[in-house]
Amino acid sequence: MEKTNSLVCVGLDSDHERLPAHLTGRNAMFRFNKAIIDATHDLVCAYKPNSAFYEEEGEEGIEQLKMTADYLVDTYPDIPLILDAKRADIGTTNKGYAAFAFDHLGMDAITLHPYLGREALMPFLDRKDKGCIVLCRTSNKGAGEFQDLKIGRDTLYKRVAIRIRDVWNKNGNCMLVVGATYPRELSELRRLIPEMTFLVPGVGAQGGDVQATVEAGLDKAKKGIIISSSRGIIFASSGKDFAEAARRETRKLLTEINKYR
Amino acid sequence: MEKTNSLVCVGLDSDHERLPAHLTGRNAMFRFNKAIIDATHDLVCAYKPNSAFYEEEGEEGIEQLKMTADYLVDTYPDIPLILDAKRADIGTTNKGYAAFAFDHLGMDAITLHPYLGREALMPFLDRKDKGCIVLCRTSNKGAGEFQDLKIGRDTLYKRVAIRIRDVWNKNGNCMLVVGATYPRELSELRRLIPEMTFLVPGVGAQGGDVQATVEAGLDKAKKGIIISSSRGIIFASSGKDFAEAARRETRKLLTEINKYR
Repeated sequence: MEKTNSLVCVGLDSDHERLPAHLTGRNAMFRFNKAIIDATHDLVCAYKPNSAFYEEEGEEGIEQLKMTADYLVDTYPDIPLILDAKRADIGTTNKGYAAFAFDHLGMDAITLHPYLGREALMPFLDRKDKGCIVLCRTSNKGAGEFQDLKIGRDTLYKRVAIRIRDVWNKNGNCMLVVGATYPRELSELRRLIPEMTFLVPGVGAQGGDVQATVEAGLDKAKKGIIISSSRGIIFASSGKDFAEAARRETRKLLTEINKYR
Repeated sequence: MEKTNSLVCVGLDSDHERLPAHLTGRNAMFRFNKAIIDATHDLVCAYKPNSAFYEEEGEEGIEQLKMTADYLVDTYPDIPLILDAKRADIGTTNKGYAAFAFDHLGMDAITLHPYLGREALMPFLDRKDKGCIVLCRTSNKGAGEFQDLKIGRDTLYKRVAIRIRDVWNKNGNCMLVVGATYPRELSELRRLIPEMTFLVPGVGAQGGDVQATVEAGLDKAKKGIIISSSRGIIFASSGKDFAEAARRETRKLLTEINKYR
């Protein structure tokens, strides 16, 4: 955030079926990611591949996810890499997920479901050198089905936020996922937790408003939100100029965000 | 359940590091699974690999998960295969997970987190031919942190169960995960939802009591619970007799369960 003066995270949701038509053959997803990274690295604060798109391609997809992570570490070692995997299992099993994400792939952070509780997630939370980004108020239309349930005077998502602030964050490595499509909730959570970084997806294709997001989410240092856009950036063009188009969209989002900081 | 008169599900949590020492070299996880399946297929109602243990091994692990699924379909096509992946993302992304689990791997069912709500999970729920097994009351010690929160007179896990019974289950393809370590809650959920099948992990290594589980969970047809044990069965011996030992433990669990049916 400081080095690039950017709160933009590019979501590498590099769906094989949506790649530009000229990108065919071996490792097309990796070559796509590499071109996007080379074109945008000075305009971002993080990259966030969603693991579903890689798993969907089986062994070859996972291999290309690892190639992407290796390329980033070798070429732009300062840029953090978030695995958007939305994991959470019970104790011993999470050891496997943590080892895969943090050690095999070399990711800096991972997104997690809160439902099983802190005790189950200790294999992630214990990794002081890695980020644990817990789903709190998600960006999807139906997010409120359980997240808005009333618990006393609070909602479930607020209770999740409070527990993470007060109990889960002993190592200072927790963050929350709060969708840009809910600026009122984002603002409420910012008041509740002034100093935690939030990962904020939902601008771009999902329709979240940039101005409302920035005004609701910034911390006192005018940082504290990682604003993630995926399809709106990486699929801005389906032609040979896809990387250039991604740079243009990233810069546009960066400029718009910084206008309201 | 009917064909084998068994409610036992063997969890293929085939952690590479815990395989018998003589199983080395290529595809050791698959060869382990194959031997376990051959030794137990007439005593089970399902198999349940936990995907974390395969992902941990990278591309080779995923390949062996697929080999296991292919072997089961080819050799014992009547036995359902549950991918214990505890997934849940938002709309478009879940299409990737559903395609991977159901189409690439050929799984019959998958475990899912409820936190994002039904709308997000439609790519799973819409698959009428596949099972959606939603986490409700999990078996881990700290499960109550959020699941026990009071919502009016109910708890969160009860609200999750009611929503799934009344709204999510339009295609009749929903099940719930309810831990054997909480027989009181299992019994409460059985009264609430008399006709839904529950996946019940937590007997064996996690300490759930078989008699209490069976008495709490059976439906009127004396079925309705898939009782899953993993480590207690598959790692019963670390020697060359591992498959034989797995058969012995499976039969023991089957006999004990059927004693209380």
